[in-house]
Amino acid sequence: MKVGIIGAGQLGRMLALAGYPLGIEPLFLDRTADTPGGQVGPIITGDFADSAKAIELAERVDIVTFDWENVPSATLAQLPAHKVRPCARALEISQDRVSEKALFRALGIPTPDFAEVDSRADLERAVAAIGLPAVLKTRRLGYDGKGQAVLRKAADIEPGWRKLAGNPLVLEAFVPFEREVSLIGVRGTDGAIAFYPLTENVHTGGILRYSRAPYRSPALQRLAERHVRRVLGNLEYVGVLALEFFVVRGRLLANEMAPRVHNSGHWTIEGAATSQFENHLRAICGFELGATRARGPCAMINFIGNLPQLAGALHEPDLHFHDYGKSPRPGRKLGHCTLLAPSATSRDARLTRLLRKFRREGAEL
Amino acid sequence: MKVGIIGAGQLGRMLALAGYPLGIEPLFLDRTADTPGGQVGPIITGDFADSAKAIELAERVDIVTFDWENVPSATLAQLPAHKVRPCARALEISQDRVSEKALFRALGIPTPDFAEVDSRADLERAVAAIGLPAVLKTRRLGYDGKGQAVLRKAADIEPGWRKLAGNPLVLEAFVPFEREVSLIGVRGTDGAIAFYPLTENVHTGGILRYSRAPYRSPALQRLAERHVRRVLGNLEYVGVLALEFFVVRGRLLANEMAPRVHNSGHWTIEGAATSQFENHLRAICGFELGATRARGPCAMINFIGNLPQLAGALHEPDLHFHDYGKSPRPGRKLGHCTLLAPSATSRDARLTRLLRKFRREGAEL
Repeated sequence: MKVGIIGAGQLGRMLALAGYPLGIEPLFLDRTADTPGGQVGPIITGDFADSAKAIELAERVDIVTFDWENVPSATLAQLPAHKVRPCARALEISQDRVSEKALFRALGIPTPDFAEVDSRADLERAVAAIGLPAVLKTRRLGYDGKGQAVLRKAADIEPGWRKLAGNPLVLEAFVPFEREVSLIGVRGTDGAIAFYPLTENVHTGGILRYSRAPYRSPALQRLAERHVRRVLGNLEYVGVLALEFFVVRGRLLANEMAPRVHNSGHWTIEGAATSQFENHLRAICGFELGATRARGPCAMINFIGNLPQLAGALHEPDLHFHDYGKSPRPGRKLGHCTLLAPSATSRDARLTRLLRKFRREGAEL
Repeated sequence: MKVGIIGAGQLGRMLALAGYPLGIEPLFLDRTADTPGGQVGPIITGDFADSAKAIELAERVDIVTFDWENVPSATLAQLPAHKVRPCARALEISQDRVSEKALFRALGIPTPDFAEVDSRADLERAVAAIGLPAVLKTRRLGYDGKGQAVLRKAADIEPGWRKLAGNPLVLEAFVPFEREVSLIGVRGTDGAIAFYPLTENVHTGGILRYSRAPYRSPALQRLAERHVRRVLGNLEYVGVLALEFFVVRGRLLANEMAPRVHNSGHWTIEGAATSQFENHLRAICGFELGATRARGPCAMINFIGNLPQLAGALHEPDLHFHDYGKSPRPGRKLGHCTLLAPSATSRDARLTRLLRKFRREGAEL
C-alpha cells in the first residue's frame, strides 16, 4: 500500500515511521526535500498550489492524506475524491474559522461567541455584540498563535485592526477557561469510530507547550465524544480528527478542529495501545482501527526553539525522545518527548521537574 | 549523529526506524538498494568484501555498526577501529563456531561438547568422543539452520560428511534440552551493562518460529546474566549482544552468540521500556542505556515464507505488525508480530490461537 502525504513536516514524518512496519510506503509532497518527512521517505518537491504535482502524487499512490490542512481548494479540487482521506470538504471547513464554528453550531456543539469581521465597522459592531476582552483572528492560515490579536480594552481595537486588516477576520469572545482539552477521534471507512482519552493541553503564546493524558473526567469524555462523533459523522470523515475545547464551568466550548493527526496526540506513540499515527493509516487504508486505550499516565513536552541535550534527556527513566530533524529557529517545534509514569502523581512531579530542566537548557516553555 | 549500518536487512531497518526519533541518521551498506533497510534510509551499494565501500561508509558516518556479523575480516581490518561498534574482534569470534565456543569455555560458560572436524578421520574421532546423536555444522556462515546435518545414527555420518565436506566443520553434541532461551545484554561505552528479561524461543528446522518473554526464572536469569556479563566484559563490547542457551536439567549450555540485535529481542519494540534497537543505538552512540524491563507478558511470532493478511492481523487486539518489505520466498523471514497481553495465561492462549490462524494462512510455523 502506498500513501501520499501532502506536507512533509513532523506529522508526516511520524506517519511515515508508523507506516513502515505495516508495509505502508509513504510518498511526500512538499516545497523542499530537506524536511522532517523528506529525511525518512521519498518526496516530490513542489508548491501546494501546483496542482500538477498533487495530481502526480495521487497517481503514484493508493490514498492521499495530509500533514497540513491548508492545501489550496483549487489543488484539492484536482484530486480524485475517492483517493483523498480525509475528504476535501473536511479540509476546506477547517481552513476557515467561521465555517468551522458554523459547522459546530449546526451540529449543536457549543462554541465561544464569534462574529465575522470584514471591515472596521464590522469590528466595532462585533466588539459591541461580544464585548471585551476578545480575540481578533484571521479566518484562514492562522496556527500556533499566528494571525491573532488580543483585544483587552477599547484602546487595543485600532492596533489589532491595523495588524490584521486586509484579511477576512473573525472576532471571538475571550473565554475565561479553566483548562484546555482535546479529543482525538478516528473513523474508519466502515464508519467505525474510536476515541482516545481526553488530553489536557497547556498553551503559551498560542503554541502547545505540554500535554497530559489521560485527562480523567468521565462526564467530559462522554460529552466530547458526543461532539466529535457528530463532526465525524457529518463529514463522513475517514482518518484521525482532533477537536480542541475550552473547559468552562464544567462545559465544553469547541475552539477548533484539525482534520489530521495532532500535536496533542503525540503521547499515543508510546502511551496508547495504538498510536494516532498508526490509527490514521489504518483508517485511511481501510483497515480495522486499533485499540485507543492509554497504557498509563503520560505527559508530552514540546521542544520549541531549541532541542535539549539528547544525552541529558535519555538519562530520564521512560522518557521517549522525538527529534524532527529541523534546524533551530525561535518559536519552531523541533521535537517533543513523552514520559510514561506509574501514577498521575509521579507523572506530574516528573513533568514539573522536566519543564524546569528543559527551560534551563533554553527550551521555550 | 550519523550511524553506518553494514547490512540492510530487517535488523538494519528496525535500527533505522528506532534511530530517526533520536535524530540518528542511518546510512546502509548492502549489495542492493531494494532491501528492508534501503527502503527506509539511504544506502551505499557494494559487496561486503569491497573494502573501499566499507571505508566510504565509515568516512561518511560517526559510528559503524552491523546488522550482519559475517562481514569479511579483510573488510573489518580496513575500518577505523574507534568508529566500529561492536568491535571487529567480537564479530570475528562469532563468525566461527569453534572460536565462539572456545571463548565461552575460557570464560567458564558451559557449552555442549564439541570437536573440530577438518577431515573424514576427524569426524570419526569426534563421533567416537562425543557420541550420537550429534550435529555436524559448518564453522562459518551457518544461520537459520543452514550448513547443518543432524547425525542420529552411524548411517547418517557419511551423508552428513558428503553434504558439508569442503568446509571447516565442527561436531556438536545433540543436547536433549528442555527449552531454548536467550539473553540480550547491552553494554555502553562507559562499561554500564543492562539485561533484558530472558526470552524463551521455539525453533523448527533451525529457524526461530516464536518467542515468549519474559521467561520468569530468577535463578536462570541470574546465571545467564553472569555468563553474558563475562562475554561483554571480555570483548570490551559496545552495543547489544544476544546469547542463546539450551536449558538442560536447570543448567544453561551456551549455544551461540550474535554480536548484534537479535530476532529473539523483537518483542522489546512494544514490550519493553526501551527496545533493543534503541538501546543498541544508545550504546554505540555513547548515550546512557534505557530501561530494559518488560511492560508485560509478550509473544513474538515470525512470519516465514509468506505474510498473513494484514487486515486479519490488525483485527487482533494489541497485536503489532512488522512487515520487512521483502518479497516472499520459502524459509525467508518476511516479518513478525508482537502481541502484548495482560497475563502470561492469556498471552499463551492467544499465541496458540494465532499460530494456528497464521499456519492456516500459509505461514511456515
